[in-house]
Amino acid sequence: MTARACQDQDIETFISEKRKLISDSLRELFSEKVDIAEKSLFEAAYYSLFPTGKLLRPLLTFAVAESYGVAAEKIILPACCIEIIHTYSLIHDDLPCMDDDDFRRGKPSLHKAYTEGHAVLTGDFLLTFAFELLAKAPNLTPEQRLSLIEILSTKAGSQGMIGGQNLDIAYTGKKIDWKIVEKIHLGKTAALIQASLAFGGIIAGAKESDMQILEEFGKLIGLGFQIIDDVLDVTGNEKELGKPVGSDQKKHKITAVTILGLEKSKEYGTELAVLANKELKKLSVPCEHLELLSKKLLHRTY
Amino acid sequence: MTARACQDQDIETFISEKRKLISDSLRELFSEKVDIAEKSLFEAAYYSLFPTGKLLRPLLTFAVAESYGVAAEKIILPACCIEIIHTYSLIHDDLPCMDDDDFRRGKPSLHKAYTEGHAVLTGDFLLTFAFELLAKAPNLTPEQRLSLIEILSTKAGSQGMIGGQNLDIAYTGKKIDWKIVEKIHLGKTAALIQASLAFGGIIAGAKESDMQILEEFGKLIGLGFQIIDDVLDVTGNEKELGKPVGSDQKKHKITAVTILGLEKSKEYGTELAVLANKELKKLSVPCEHLELLSKKLLHRTY
Repeated sequence: MTARACQDQDIETFISEKRKLISDSLRELFSEKVDIAEKSLFEAAYYSLFPTGKLLRPLLTFAVAESYGVAAEKIILPACCIEIIHTYSLIHDDLPCMDDDDFRRGKPSLHKAYTEGHAVLTGDFLLTFAFELLAKAPNLTPEQRLSLIEILSTKAGSQGMIGGQNLDIAYTGKKIDWKIVEKIHLGKTAALIQASLAFGGIIAGAKESDMQILEEFGKLIGLGFQIIDDVLDVTGNEKELGKPVGSDQKKHKITAVTILGLEKSKEYGTELAVLANKELKKLSVPCEHLELLSKKLLHRTY
Repeated sequence: MTARACQDQDIETFISEKRKLISDSLRELFSEKVDIAEKSLFEAAYYSLFPTGKLLRPLLTFAVAESYGVAAEKIILPACCIEIIHTYSLIHDDLPCMDDDDFRRGKPSLHKAYTEGHAVLTGDFLLTFAFELLAKAPNLTPEQRLSLIEILSTKAGSQGMIGGQNLDIAYTGKKIDWKIVEKIHLGKTAALIQASLAFGGIIAGAKESDMQILEEFGKLIGLGFQIIDDVLDVTGNEKELGKPVGSDQKKHKITAVTILGLEKSKEYGTELAVLANKELKKLSVPCEHLELLSKKLLHRTY
């Protein structure tokens, strides 16, 4: 086998093994409850979590932490919390008063399958539950658990994900420049990717200079990931994407493509991939899985 | 002045001094932001927080912690976080897909003053922000901060507030028995009151037996508080209550009154007050402010 084929096989094995581990843990966390007040919340959460998406964010947490030689049992619960926060954000974003999406991962969104009220509550539940789980996360020091809570609440809050969504809603249909679009992408997409990477670093006890590299790397791949999403919304294959193309345009969303054009967006995406890879080389440990994972992300065609 | 008059004056001074302290701190936390992604979230949060309500929950935190001789600078931030969580829950509960209330504290609810999307996001922001603030709370040990986060996420989550709201939505308009109504009240009302009291205990480093007494006391006054609310919705004075009477009936809510009747509800409220007071006497420290505060709560006529 060539070195390249070897690498390909290695990263595919990493991805499928970790995906199974994360899915199994999430399934256990959200197994059926007997209590009547909790039952339908856990059921609705399960409905939204499964079948899972690509589990990109918890995979990033694993890729970072394992680069430092950390064992899976320390990583798994925080990694699941990242996916829980991602899922809550999708549930609330899909609401009619937000992005108004009736479908998610090929099935009715939660507010269509249940009710809008139940979707609001289930999102609130997941957001709250993530912090409860982190406060109790096993095999970590109190300082580490606090750091995880601090980074997650910051990156998921007004300075990160919620801030990005807030800008997105405020500017939909309005004239905006690239600076605002970039700020939306950094908030809505890059912030939680940065949290996923920082989680790996915190769990591993990475030094401050590595944490800063991961923060910058997360910004670059988060932005790159979103720009490729914008491009694929125009050029993508509906069947492979698993969602309708052209939905940004239909919603009058301003994206990288509407402002920079298709070619310049593609170029910018490539440029970000190069910068991200350079950044990663500065880390104090080799991190092949992280490198391969980010390459897969930034060179995807679907 | 008689002993009783002295007590009355003392608790009124305590209440007004702490209310000012809490309001000032909240005002500082939610002062205007320059960043365009955060600006309207902070403005909307401020709109919902001010003018404040009775600030009952943070007052309870102060009353407990001060009984152990803790200084205000240790108490103030966690106390504000309790009010932040309470406010997020009101914003989401008022949404059309939830309790559908157009007015809150005599002015339009947030989703009427802004938009529904903005109300969902602002609630999410407040919930996330409370955990961020607790993770960084000054003058407390990492273990104390983690305990605060653990208790708040549990009491505000599926086993507490969200679970209660979930049951309430599920059973509105349906035939239910007292056991379910009690479970709804314990979740929606008592859980956050229990968290407020536990916050005081954690900040003070109270021993486990005191923590259990506070937990039981919180259950009793939380339930009593809600039963009096149910009674006042029938017998109350609209002007003094600051909200329309009879709104439970209009929404076909099953309350203590609809199941137990008016007289039995009043009797049960009184019984809970007696039990609560007995429970409090078991604490290892005298807690006069807490006692007077809970008496005020459970004997209110508006």
